[in-house]
Amino acid sequence: MAKGASLSGFPEWLPEERVVEQRVMDTLRSLFELHGFLGIETRAVEQGSSLLKKGETSKEIYLLSRLQDHGNEADTPVEDMLGLHFDLTVPLSRYVVENSGAVTFPFKRWQIQKVWRGERPQEGRFREFVQADIDVVGNGELPSHYEVDVPLVMVEALEELRELGLPKATVHANNRKLSEGFYRGVGLTDIEGVLREIDKIDKIGPDEVAQLLTSECGASAEQADACLELAQLSAENGTRLREKFDALCARRGVDKDGEAYALAIEGLETLAMIVDEAAQIRPGAVIADLKIARGLDYYTGSVYETFLDGAASLGSICSGGRYDNLATQGKKKYPGVGLSIGLSRLVSYMLHSAHATASRVSPAAVLVAVWDEEHRAGSNAIARTLRSRGIAADVAPTAAKLGKQIKYADKLGIPYVWIPSTTDENGEQSAEEVKNIITGEQVAASADTWTPASEYAERRVVVGQ
Amino acid sequence: MAKGASLSGFPEWLPEERVVEQRVMDTLRSLFELHGFLGIETRAVEQGSSLLKKGETSKEIYLLSRLQDHGNEADTPVEDMLGLHFDLTVPLSRYVVENSGAVTFPFKRWQIQKVWRGERPQEGRFREFVQADIDVVGNGELPSHYEVDVPLVMVEALEELRELGLPKATVHANNRKLSEGFYRGVGLTDIEGVLREIDKIDKIGPDEVAQLLTSECGASAEQADACLELAQLSAENGTRLREKFDALCARRGVDKDGEAYALAIEGLETLAMIVDEAAQIRPGAVIADLKIARGLDYYTGSVYETFLDGAASLGSICSGGRYDNLATQGKKKYPGVGLSIGLSRLVSYMLHSAHATASRVSPAAVLVAVWDEEHRAGSNAIARTLRSRGIAADVAPTAAKLGKQIKYADKLGIPYVWIPSTTDENGEQSAEEVKNIITGEQVAASADTWTPASEYAERRVVVGQ
Repeated sequence: MAKGASLSGFPEWLPEERVVEQRVMDTLRSLFELHGFLGIETRAVEQGSSLLKKGETSKEIYLLSRLQDHGNEADTPVEDMLGLHFDLTVPLSRYVVENSGAVTFPFKRWQIQKVWRGERPQEGRFREFVQADIDVVGNGELPSHYEVDVPLVMVEALEELRELGLPKATVHANNRKLSEGFYRGVGLTDIEGVLREIDKIDKIGPDEVAQLLTSECGASAEQADACLELAQLSAENGTRLREKFDALCARRGVDKDGEAYALAIEGLETLAMIVDEAAQIRPGAVIADLKIARGLDYYTGSVYETFLDGAASLGSICSGGRYDNLATQGKKKYPGVGLSIGLSRLVSYMLHSAHATASRVSPAAVLVAVWDEEHRAGSNAIARTLRSRGIAADVAPTAAKLGKQIKYADKLGIPYVWIPSTTDENGEQSAEEVKNIITGEQVAASADTWTPASEYAERRVVVGQ
Repeated sequence: MAKGASLSGFPEWLPEERVVEQRVMDTLRSLFELHGFLGIETRAVEQGSSLLKKGETSKEIYLLSRLQDHGNEADTPVEDMLGLHFDLTVPLSRYVVENSGAVTFPFKRWQIQKVWRGERPQEGRFREFVQADIDVVGNGELPSHYEVDVPLVMVEALEELRELGLPKATVHANNRKLSEGFYRGVGLTDIEGVLREIDKIDKIGPDEVAQLLTSECGASAEQADACLELAQLSAENGTRLREKFDALCARRGVDKDGEAYALAIEGLETLAMIVDEAAQIRPGAVIADLKIARGLDYYTGSVYETFLDGAASLGSICSGGRYDNLATQGKKKYPGVGLSIGLSRLVSYMLHSAHATASRVSPAAVLVAVWDEEHRAGSNAIARTLRSRGIAADVAPTAAKLGKQIKYADKLGIPYVWIPSTTDENGEQSAEEVKNIITGEQVAASADTWTPASEYAERRVVVGQ
């Protein structure tokens, strides 16, 4: 990270690190477009009223005020203020409603943008970071095949990032209806409360969650135990999932003729479809994991979290779900399903754990040397010719001794130094040459025809060196 | 613009408009990198203290406060608050100082990012917009050739954007030392005040500026007149510039042996160098125009504004200058020179005046039809094969009638609809075919080998249709 990331939670990268982040963003964008997703960018700010109504993260809003109004902020209720968005889903919902007459449904969109969370400063938590989202939003209805299509696009995206140092990713899926149906089936009523506590299992462990379920959500010890048993359930295919769930319901006395069970089965069948369809295309990439709860309260069906092999401490790096009631306009609903990659956290992992970096700092393949300031125009002309042929070129900042110019190229990782022809004291003109400062090879060359060796032509991302 | 740009000053584009903005950003980035500039991204927020000390725009800061602290904002002085950056130059200066040990000087960087200005809502002014900047920052010193190199990169960049509907651009250059020397030479002392008023000529006209110079800056009628005469001076080469300036100084009685004149000549020679060097490479692209003042007070030498042919009302679309005292660390200085494109305003012009738009809404070249939901997996497999060959493909959202699926493709501008083979009531299998829904041509095809016609392969930006 840039040495002076002087504000806690606001990461900044050095230029050679930014190359990695940029590569990640380019890779995702081009994969999303290969799948027919449309790119949008929404404004960074939303009305306080729309930020406040959705989910837990709304506690962490940064509010804005104009400098001129400083001192009078308290006069304005939060609802009427502007705040920075804390995710890209709430803005998408607003965008879809506002532009419902202008976009085609189902609306498949990708969006890679910064979000802000005004959390307390805390080790390893970013307050400004980039998210990379894909969502599909329907008009009135949304076919359930998108609940497997969308996570599979993310799996493919994360697969592409493995060459940048990312370990294998596995999507863990669950379904809110399944959880809710089961909780109701064992007699619980504070469903949001239970989901919120279950979401903490990985952080605080099952024993503490059991205590919270009894103290906060009115659960008996047996009900709490049932919830934890559900959370321990996982399966790689629909058949095993159905078997395990039915056995659990039988043990816990869930009434198979009740509404709660019917709701659970609705969620179970969607989840079974997801793992079975995904298994046909990418075996093992998507598993059913019934402890996945997602803190945010706008999800209504499928929920997803994604974990990296051997990097459990990172937590979920790509999460989301289906939300049927987030975007509404009068009676009209725009149900959606989407996932969001925590891109900054991923890049931080690539840089610091996988040691990904740029093969060189500068995009330039060539530094054109300058013999003296009077002949700078000649060096500029050589650089122009190279650039017109698509070869990125820089020109030495000063007409220092050639050794110093080569040192400048070396610091920036520029592999070639171009040495223009010059006239010596006897009036003899030297040949125009180019030197590969990595191999030491120096050859006569013309800017009209010379081409860099392919391994030095482009700046790349290299891993673990 | 997206129909519901519901917050005044916060533009949002429709997906087909965003394609244009994205193309502009991609074009600029690749040109900047061709010239060896390094990309960085800085955090969106800066300390109030560092935002406040630089220039006029600091009046328009958006301050941030955490939701939890709402109501108590007044307790915190602005200097200790965080604010959104209003440009990319102040953040660059901080970044350079913080990372001076990690970057190579001269530090050539490009940066394309959003900035925010908490102005009063006002017709046609954006409060959130994208800037595209290049700067070169030296350590201690910065060779003056960058004062012509940097605007020439911007000229080349704007030239590349002409195919997206931009008219020809001309950079108008001036030099603060020239102006200051002349103002002092005619006996004025409130240099910042004079520059601020001169900056208003295009907005309010010379008569009103003359009045302001006398009422606000202590100028006599004759001094005001001299300032306006200087502002009217322009030239396409150094020789004409020197002649005109010397004639003016003689008329206005500027002492040619005084310090003020020497300062003016220092500025004049830099300006003459800029127009002469630029003329050799791109005749007419950079002219000396002595009314260019730049409101921001951090410029110390060259200043630039850029105007489009036939779009004067847009104002300057690319501005900047040399700043010797913006980034400092103890006694150390990091002088820089840079220009900034007001990218959102440019995109707005391209969309609304040049009628640039995407050749199609969706990036997909192919929509794979679905006969029935049971056979969706087969359609998915076809799309996967196409994507593996780099052909962007979408799959129909529902197994509606084929005509409805074609209509969906048509709305998104997807040129090809893939028709998978199917088995009819007699058990006969139909051929797999692909239909170009623009030409109507339909041919048998295999996803392993078929390739779209080149004019339909990629989504492009088209102008004036």
